[in-house]
Amino acid sequence: MNKRIFFDHASATPLDARVLDAMLPYLQEEFGNPSSYLHSFGQQPCNALDKARRQVAAMINARPDEIIFTSGGTEANNLAVKGIALANEGKGKEILVSEIEHYSVLFAAQSLKRWGFEVKYLPVDKDGLLDPQDVRRAINPKTCLVCVMQANNEIGVIQDIPAISAITKKHGVSLHCDAVASAGTIPVDVQTLGVDSLSLSAQQFYGPKGTGALYLRKGVKIETQMQGGHQEMGRRSGTENVAGIVGLGAAAEIAVQELPQNMERLIVLRDRLLHGLKERIDYFNITGHPTRRLPGHVSFWVEFVEGESLLLCLDLEGIASASGSACSSNLRGQDEYDLAASHVLTAIGVPPEICHGSIAFTLGQGNTQEDVDYTLDVMPKIVARLRQMSPLYADKLRPGK
Amino acid sequence: MNKRIFFDHASATPLDARVLDAMLPYLQEEFGNPSSYLHSFGQQPCNALDKARRQVAAMINARPDEIIFTSGGTEANNLAVKGIALANEGKGKEILVSEIEHYSVLFAAQSLKRWGFEVKYLPVDKDGLLDPQDVRRAINPKTCLVCVMQANNEIGVIQDIPAISAITKKHGVSLHCDAVASAGTIPVDVQTLGVDSLSLSAQQFYGPKGTGALYLRKGVKIETQMQGGHQEMGRRSGTENVAGIVGLGAAAEIAVQELPQNMERLIVLRDRLLHGLKERIDYFNITGHPTRRLPGHVSFWVEFVEGESLLLCLDLEGIASASGSACSSNLRGQDEYDLAASHVLTAIGVPPEICHGSIAFTLGQGNTQEDVDYTLDVMPKIVARLRQMSPLYADKLRPGK
Repeated sequence: MNKRIFFDHASATPLDARVLDAMLPYLQEEFGNPSSYLHSFGQQPCNALDKARRQVAAMINARPDEIIFTSGGTEANNLAVKGIALANEGKGKEILVSEIEHYSVLFAAQSLKRWGFEVKYLPVDKDGLLDPQDVRRAINPKTCLVCVMQANNEIGVIQDIPAISAITKKHGVSLHCDAVASAGTIPVDVQTLGVDSLSLSAQQFYGPKGTGALYLRKGVKIETQMQGGHQEMGRRSGTENVAGIVGLGAAAEIAVQELPQNMERLIVLRDRLLHGLKERIDYFNITGHPTRRLPGHVSFWVEFVEGESLLLCLDLEGIASASGSACSSNLRGQDEYDLAASHVLTAIGVPPEICHGSIAFTLGQGNTQEDVDYTLDVMPKIVARLRQMSPLYADKLRPGK
Repeated sequence: MNKRIFFDHASATPLDARVLDAMLPYLQEEFGNPSSYLHSFGQQPCNALDKARRQVAAMINARPDEIIFTSGGTEANNLAVKGIALANEGKGKEILVSEIEHYSVLFAAQSLKRWGFEVKYLPVDKDGLLDPQDVRRAINPKTCLVCVMQANNEIGVIQDIPAISAITKKHGVSLHCDAVASAGTIPVDVQTLGVDSLSLSAQQFYGPKGTGALYLRKGVKIETQMQGGHQEMGRRSGTENVAGIVGLGAAAEIAVQELPQNMERLIVLRDRLLHGLKERIDYFNITGHPTRRLPGHVSFWVEFVEGESLLLCLDLEGIASASGSACSSNLRGQDEYDLAASHVLTAIGVPPEICHGSIAFTLGQGNTQEDVDYTLDVMPKIVARLRQMSPLYADKLRPGK
């Protein structure tokens, strides 16, 4: 295979070489346990955690002591949703979540039903946008937590978090914001957003897998979800993944420095790809809001084409992309979670039988205009070939053309 | 500082260079998300997880599908204790734990009190050994889970797990075994041990921090403690720390291969150090059983010496060791957890005012006989100096000498 284009940055980003360089000492000579700071081996790792905490805090305009390191975005979301709901259940046992939250928020909230909590869902419109007035309408004296993600991983749409937090603040209810898909990609300022907690993941912005963080506003109560040696000021126990956390910190610092130029470049590539595909392919539908979306995020569905076939053909042509989210792949074929369609696409009104044809091209720093133009050339041919091969779809197409 | 001797392998081990080599491709070109196996970038990471699963399974004589990767020993213990207790609460809501369990087992069990569980403690004798007959006596129809660690991190003592599992099996109660301190250091065979679940941590055997595993015997019910994208067959969600897991697998394979010679060598060094210190220092007391202990584990308390002063003086002489466990450092100075003494030392009957003088030298692969002999030379001098400097202790010593 000559071409190898990675258009699936929503599932993973390559580790930045500068980040790996920052990590390497902690995979070599600086192997000490940061909790063993009474001898010299523990001191440097301990200092390294402090530095990473400042770097992550600076990225989102928080204080270092508001950062809790976790094993990734999923753990950060679980800790926030369960930890805050359980610590605040005195207020009431109702959780409001947007319909299009990531599974780590949705299923974490649903797990609390076991303890008498109720989960209510906030709808989104056909562009994937949540109306802040719906939060106002849904919030009630029993509400202990509201969860709305900053940007959606499948359809790229960015919510108006400040408008939502204005409402939750007025009602004295905590707002958790999943920023896993957005942090490092667009500006994330916890003061401007007005959120009480916010999760992020290093692997979404060229940092290592297996590290993330939860921002928890000072004063917000939380119940730890992992008991043990009281690391992270008792909020998350377990010997710290020092190299991973150092990588998270380094990636955060680089992301902030390079954000403006990266955003600008990716928005140009995104729009060239999105509009180019729409021009070249019939029955092509953008999913998510056309402009209020993540810089490198191109998502769509193509009628009369099966999504996984499209994915595999693209891969054969050297283009790696995603149908639905990476996480949802694990749910397929499991009886209890045999989700015929992505819950996100269903929420924005894509007919279930058509969700299979949904694709996300998520562009990142390694992508070029050449990649985009190659895709604009190859993709219409693949779609045409797939439609020809399927007599079922051919029948459907005839009257339409 | 000329000398730099690391005698704190219970808190952390250096990453084996061969393990880092195995990890590096997954910190570089193989950055794909294993759940994205529908395109070529995800396939190699997905295969790498499979290989690591086989390596970890082989290390403990389990089946690959009985291995759940976690972010470390603490998460593995939390998942086992909470997950198994909650999934089996129909049987009853009583958990039996040994008094000397690691905090990640103790506090995880105690966290279940919130949900109506009761925690009962199994005592140990002055050598730190649990009498299996105490398990037989304590077990009752309400017992849903028994937790006994294979080896203790602070005092090195190894429990008779097969004798304990014979009892739990007879009563149809699950037995969880924390093998974080032992896996990779002594043989761990889940069939011989007869346990239902077992936790281990890569960083205890020259693997990376931030990765561990839970063995869960096929058929044992568990409730996941982290919801999300259904990774690890739904038992632990979150994008996998691929490089870390590859490192865990490589470290497991190396540990098994080199276990016999490492054990033999470390036992010789351990006994030379332990007996040498006992000969040279008055009021020197071994903690934990003198022979049924981990190969490289030397733990003791010295009367009339303050433990942290001893630790700092040793560090000045280039010897890194631990007073109590690495994890408990985080508890000091916190009002609610101001544990004057280690719960482990208290359990074996060390007077609380003396626990401060407790030290563990945990030897590992980099240590030599020269390190041991240097310590045998330096340590008695430090103890003498510290005793001289303290008029309080000087008074106490006079009548004793």
